[in-house]
Amino acid sequence: MDRRSFFRQAGAAGAGAIAATTLAAPAIAQGNQTWRMVTTWPKNFPGMGVGAQRLADRITAASGGRLTIQVYSAGELVPGLQALDAVIDGNAEMSHGAAYYWQNKSTGLSFFTGVPYGMTSRELTGWVRYLGGQEIWDEIYDQFGVQGFLSGDTGTQAGGWFRNELTGVADIQGLRFRTPGLGGQVWQKLGASVTNLAAGEIFQALQSGTLDAAEFVGPYNDLALGFYQIAKNYYFPSFIEPGLATELVVDKAKYQALPADLQAIIKDVCQAEYDSVAADFAANDPRALQTLVNDHGVKVLQFPDEILEAGAVAAKEIFQGLLDSSDPLTKKTAESFVSAFNIVRQKTDGTDSLFVQAREKYFHL
Amino acid sequence: MDRRSFFRQAGAAGAGAIAATTLAAPAIAQGNQTWRMVTTWPKNFPGMGVGAQRLADRITAASGGRLTIQVYSAGELVPGLQALDAVIDGNAEMSHGAAYYWQNKSTGLSFFTGVPYGMTSRELTGWVRYLGGQEIWDEIYDQFGVQGFLSGDTGTQAGGWFRNELTGVADIQGLRFRTPGLGGQVWQKLGASVTNLAAGEIFQALQSGTLDAAEFVGPYNDLALGFYQIAKNYYFPSFIEPGLATELVVDKAKYQALPADLQAIIKDVCQAEYDSVAADFAANDPRALQTLVNDHGVKVLQFPDEILEAGAVAAKEIFQGLLDSSDPLTKKTAESFVSAFNIVRQKTDGTDSLFVQAREKYFHL
Repeated sequence: MDRRSFFRQAGAAGAGAIAATTLAAPAIAQGNQTWRMVTTWPKNFPGMGVGAQRLADRITAASGGRLTIQVYSAGELVPGLQALDAVIDGNAEMSHGAAYYWQNKSTGLSFFTGVPYGMTSRELTGWVRYLGGQEIWDEIYDQFGVQGFLSGDTGTQAGGWFRNELTGVADIQGLRFRTPGLGGQVWQKLGASVTNLAAGEIFQALQSGTLDAAEFVGPYNDLALGFYQIAKNYYFPSFIEPGLATELVVDKAKYQALPADLQAIIKDVCQAEYDSVAADFAANDPRALQTLVNDHGVKVLQFPDEILEAGAVAAKEIFQGLLDSSDPLTKKTAESFVSAFNIVRQKTDGTDSLFVQAREKYFHL
Repeated sequence: MDRRSFFRQAGAAGAGAIAATTLAAPAIAQGNQTWRMVTTWPKNFPGMGVGAQRLADRITAASGGRLTIQVYSAGELVPGLQALDAVIDGNAEMSHGAAYYWQNKSTGLSFFTGVPYGMTSRELTGWVRYLGGQEIWDEIYDQFGVQGFLSGDTGTQAGGWFRNELTGVADIQGLRFRTPGLGGQVWQKLGASVTNLAAGEIFQALQSGTLDAAEFVGPYNDLALGFYQIAKNYYFPSFIEPGLATELVVDKAKYQALPADLQAIIKDVCQAEYDSVAADFAANDPRALQTLVNDHGVKVLQFPDEILEAGAVAAKEIFQGLLDSSDPLTKKTAESFVSAFNIVRQKTDGTDSLFVQAREKYFHL
């Protein structure tokens, strides 16, 4: 998944725009308010960016216009990577992005987006809603006067685009691979030379030979970026991004000052959108992949077992580092995550996965 | 999953209560309305019944009390199996249940709950929200003047409780098995003698030897019914119920007469609850199963491949029957389902499932 791209692309425009527009107070007329939602996504970005706009529209509709949400794509009001700060600083009431963008504020935030070999989207919602996840997330964000809600999930992502096929860990040594975050750390441990180029720069880096491989999101998002023109080997699944949850963050004081019904609407719509975005990827990732395979000659491959296993060893080291963190809240988050993980995965492994495997083996229409 | 139990248990009381209470018009005071939600669930039924109450409370809260939902458990206003009729007949504004309870009205309704070897909860939401499922569902329910919304999902269920271990299809011949619906038809094709006892009657039938085996929902719901005292062999997964979606049904004319914001709230809360119920089962099925194994000596087993394969053959025959239906709307629903199924399962099989298998093999904390 991309992080800095949109922000860089849009940074200059954002910096200029902020002085002119962000410092006005929210419009209030006849009890109606307009809130500003800054996002980390470019306009019309499939799945996540479209989801941010839809979420805003649904809050506006469900509130009967009492709370109108005005969406600003990355760079329109502030650069994407300043979305959370805009809320903290009072320049926007809401931000839409992913919690792991703010790891520099608190390392534990990664867990609310997705971590290598971690929870699927269904497992994450089990932890956040029923096994203490939301409470810890609130504790982290309370430090900044904001409140986070899950607002979407991509589901398990693709593993990446590789110029050459991978036969084992040896092929990763020195491989120049674009992959960010904790996942990037995993690949670095496997021997890759990891870089984090902006989305708009990946294609050219592949074409010029500066990159040997790149991962972004999955078919639905990757199709538009044209990587298939250079690297035909498309690996599945990502073992570093078993899901990517998006978040809506609100200014907590302003949220709590809303009438109870509007507070409920924001919460309800975020949860509805968690389902909508996941459904969007469920329906549209396969269709995009069909296009890639049928129209563009893309080869769909799986990582060799040796890489999956080495990736798991590397991911365990990263988990251990978080469990041993000297920051009490990061340690607490990691412990809660691992405890919940060992509960929710039992249904995934012992029921859901066995059904899907039996169906794959015996049932085709 | 149980069907008739609650209804029978509650039937007598319900029949008495209806004359006294159901025919009053909805309360309207200062623009506020109270709507009646009849459910197919007993009071406090884990996951689904609790979800119906929570859904009602969330609509009430998000509407600021402009639309208050009063919940009636099975039998309080009408017997559970008359919930949809109560809405059709104008005796309630909403019902909460599962679409496959109403197969006698339209066979295609099964697809909106779950069918043998069919869609998982994530796949179902992909079909309903992005691949034409809701539109066909609307077409079916339009005939009855109602509108359905997905409102929860159990996820993949358990396969059932068996007094004796199963080594292959031969062991199913004549097996007296309690399992309802299309799943019951699958087991019948495998040679079982299928019955559909009420939930409250299953335990005694197992104890007296009238039943050799029974399936109900999964650990979260099954624990309370005490089957573990008689049949220690608990099989996973169910191949006949890969998911069970619940529905909220509303009187369409009354729904459309609501202000647009209240219409949006009902829709949003239903979708939020689809996620909540699934998260509830994700978190609580494993904990219930731990209790069954650790405190009650239950043995967790998987069906032999021979049974999984024969089950798939039987399920295909049932699908073919629905695809060949002489009822145009059933045929259309089956065709839409199969078309969407062949899209959404590509992500499940080619991405999600491969990730979970790799994690199961290599990553334990």
